[in-house]
Amino acid sequence: MTLMNILASRSSRMKASEIRELLKLLDQPDIISFAGGIPDASLFPAEAIAGAYQAVLSGGEAGAALQYQVSEGYAPLRHWLASEMGKLGVACDEGNIFITSGSQQALDYLGKLFLSPGDTALVTWPTYLGALQAFNAYEPRYDRLTLDGGNMTPDAYRAAAAAPSAASKEGGRVKFAYLVPDFANPTGNTLNRQQREAVLDLAGELDIAVIEDAAYRALRYDGEPVPPILALDCARSGGIDKARTLYCGSFSKILSPGMRVGWVCAPRHVVEKLVLMKQASDLHSPSVNQMVMHRVAETVFDGQVDSLIGAYRQRRDALIAALDAHMPQGVTWSRPEGGMFVWVTLPEGADAAALLARSVAEARVAFVPGSAFFADGTGRNTLRLSFTLANRRAVEEGVPRLAALLRG
Amino acid sequence: MTLMNILASRSSRMKASEIRELLKLLDQPDIISFAGGIPDASLFPAEAIAGAYQAVLSGGEAGAALQYQVSEGYAPLRHWLASEMGKLGVACDEGNIFITSGSQQALDYLGKLFLSPGDTALVTWPTYLGALQAFNAYEPRYDRLTLDGGNMTPDAYRAAAAAPSAASKEGGRVKFAYLVPDFANPTGNTLNRQQREAVLDLAGELDIAVIEDAAYRALRYDGEPVPPILALDCARSGGIDKARTLYCGSFSKILSPGMRVGWVCAPRHVVEKLVLMKQASDLHSPSVNQMVMHRVAETVFDGQVDSLIGAYRQRRDALIAALDAHMPQGVTWSRPEGGMFVWVTLPEGADAAALLARSVAEARVAFVPGSAFFADGTGRNTLRLSFTLANRRAVEEGVPRLAALLRG
Repeated sequence: MTLMNILASRSSRMKASEIRELLKLLDQPDIISFAGGIPDASLFPAEAIAGAYQAVLSGGEAGAALQYQVSEGYAPLRHWLASEMGKLGVACDEGNIFITSGSQQALDYLGKLFLSPGDTALVTWPTYLGALQAFNAYEPRYDRLTLDGGNMTPDAYRAAAAAPSAASKEGGRVKFAYLVPDFANPTGNTLNRQQREAVLDLAGELDIAVIEDAAYRALRYDGEPVPPILALDCARSGGIDKARTLYCGSFSKILSPGMRVGWVCAPRHVVEKLVLMKQASDLHSPSVNQMVMHRVAETVFDGQVDSLIGAYRQRRDALIAALDAHMPQGVTWSRPEGGMFVWVTLPEGADAAALLARSVAEARVAFVPGSAFFADGTGRNTLRLSFTLANRRAVEEGVPRLAALLRG
Repeated sequence: MTLMNILASRSSRMKASEIRELLKLLDQPDIISFAGGIPDASLFPAEAIAGAYQAVLSGGEAGAALQYQVSEGYAPLRHWLASEMGKLGVACDEGNIFITSGSQQALDYLGKLFLSPGDTALVTWPTYLGALQAFNAYEPRYDRLTLDGGNMTPDAYRAAAAAPSAASKEGGRVKFAYLVPDFANPTGNTLNRQQREAVLDLAGELDIAVIEDAAYRALRYDGEPVPPILALDCARSGGIDKARTLYCGSFSKILSPGMRVGWVCAPRHVVEKLVLMKQASDLHSPSVNQMVMHRVAETVFDGQVDSLIGAYRQRRDALIAALDAHMPQGVTWSRPEGGMFVWVTLPEGADAAALLARSVAEARVAFVPGSAFFADGTGRNTLRLSFTLANRRAVEEGVPRLAALLRG
């Protein structure tokens, strides 16, 4: 017997990513990989984290660390995060902070909270693949969020959303715009202040939410920080509880992804809904990890950011220098001010997926073809390089080999 | 502005549980509470857990413990669980094991996998409140699963399911039966082998899944263990990959709920779907907690079960003895062979919610009124008592006070 014939309709959109499946095959020692997209584990503050687990579990807090907890999260961690958000221009208190199991869970919950089948989510072309996967479970349509003023007016978005869709048999409506404004995955691009204000203008005209994915925000290597969209929103709307922006933060890129601790900073009425959702879906994020993250964040967060910036800036510079030195004419790439990724555009008509197959077979170099990041599957001539795991040898050997293949 | 007018339709079924809200107010030192439903934190193997965190985070595994991980879970833990399931009569390998963030997440994922709006879930009357909350997000209808042979034939279930529902505007279909076969929350009841076979018969005739919530299974204080429904299913269907039963296990009641580690044991094709769902919803359960749970489970699981059985059996016996000694005629209660709960039935027409208000005000004794556990809100004359946190004084003072109130 099989249970596959009684699945919910949403499950038809839960598919194995071809990219992830392909990349699984590439975990071989002689492959130089720019595919990863994960932080360098050797830079984690492992000693501080081990010490914090020891302190939490050997003292009077041990019982609480191992016991059930409230769904909204560990109060001292929420308090610390509220104060950090304050430094970014978002005046709030712990009632505006909701602890998640990594920011991926925030995306899942926000999709679940807003999207009925056939509703429209606005996303950039390209956007974070994991956001598309999280939202897909709620059967939305996607429309293209343009950041350059763009060709889409609120009326055009509304009209497109109102057209009947296959999923719902009736038109849905636009529910939110999702974006990664700082050093985006996959492009590395950062929105300037004017672009952030324009997103808020559009959201106001459409009366929708803005999901601000700030996973990489702390990793800025050059230039001046731009205020979070949520901070700009608070300034114009009169405070966080009147804002429409939902800020998703994460400790994964700075302290440890394996502990799975992230947060949402949002109006109180949204936090209250998320708390109910969490109670029903996994009760709460692990108590002990939240208590440890609070201790570690209080003591080493800022120093850890500085040390990662030093290490990753060097790797970014080396990758960009190698691209500058070796890539043939007609190939272009982003010059990110932070984050983990460089985005490469091949000449029109090139196929990065086909290139990957050849690159692995002939050059032993891996990357992520870009089309997976486009909701409509376009962008076949783009690819993503991650520099967080790229040491000097990898860059000095890998980029020339890839470039030689492209000159081909 | 408010975002509350653009929520998905499913969010209307995410409501604060009145019971939980009420119980929050009762966290006062002079209240004797049988309401909890949580394990006794003083019995957790805190030293073994602290030692395992230290070992995992100070050795060569630290990088892996703090890094991203595969969505299916930590392979050695899956391997250990497959072997434990083998001891219960379920021959399987780690491809049949999926790690969740507690068994609440398993219920959420299985609801998400099977339920389209308007589909029917069969649940016992009463059933675990958290299961109803998890499934509610997917907008099902509920029908009553009877365990005594019952008055519902497969045809009757099919006819009820096919009737139009408010949620879907068309009839859905029955997707699964959910039950807690061992020392159920809230009743404490255990299904005998014949009842388990009858559930499988019904599921076969309806061609639906069976969700077996085994959260309390290891906590048996008297009598002989009954095979899991999944073991009976494997025996009749010819092996786990042909089975229709999805077994949800948890470390929460034995080792620690605060670490949030549970598992699903299921046919491989179901596990593969759950892995995709997890990748999209929170990537993976915390790496470090899974590695620690594996070490702790390997070394102290069996001893910990024995010591909990000793402690909780005594508390159950004391509670039952006090009920026997003090409760007035017309009040009846379950005599569970294990688990955490005794289920009390008041005379027809009594209202346990009203009783709770009086009990807290006049007797300073708390419990959970039973109607929250009924999908149709009936069962107003029932209530749940948990004995896991009930020390001798609590039982000797609390039960007589509650009984006096009932004698009125």
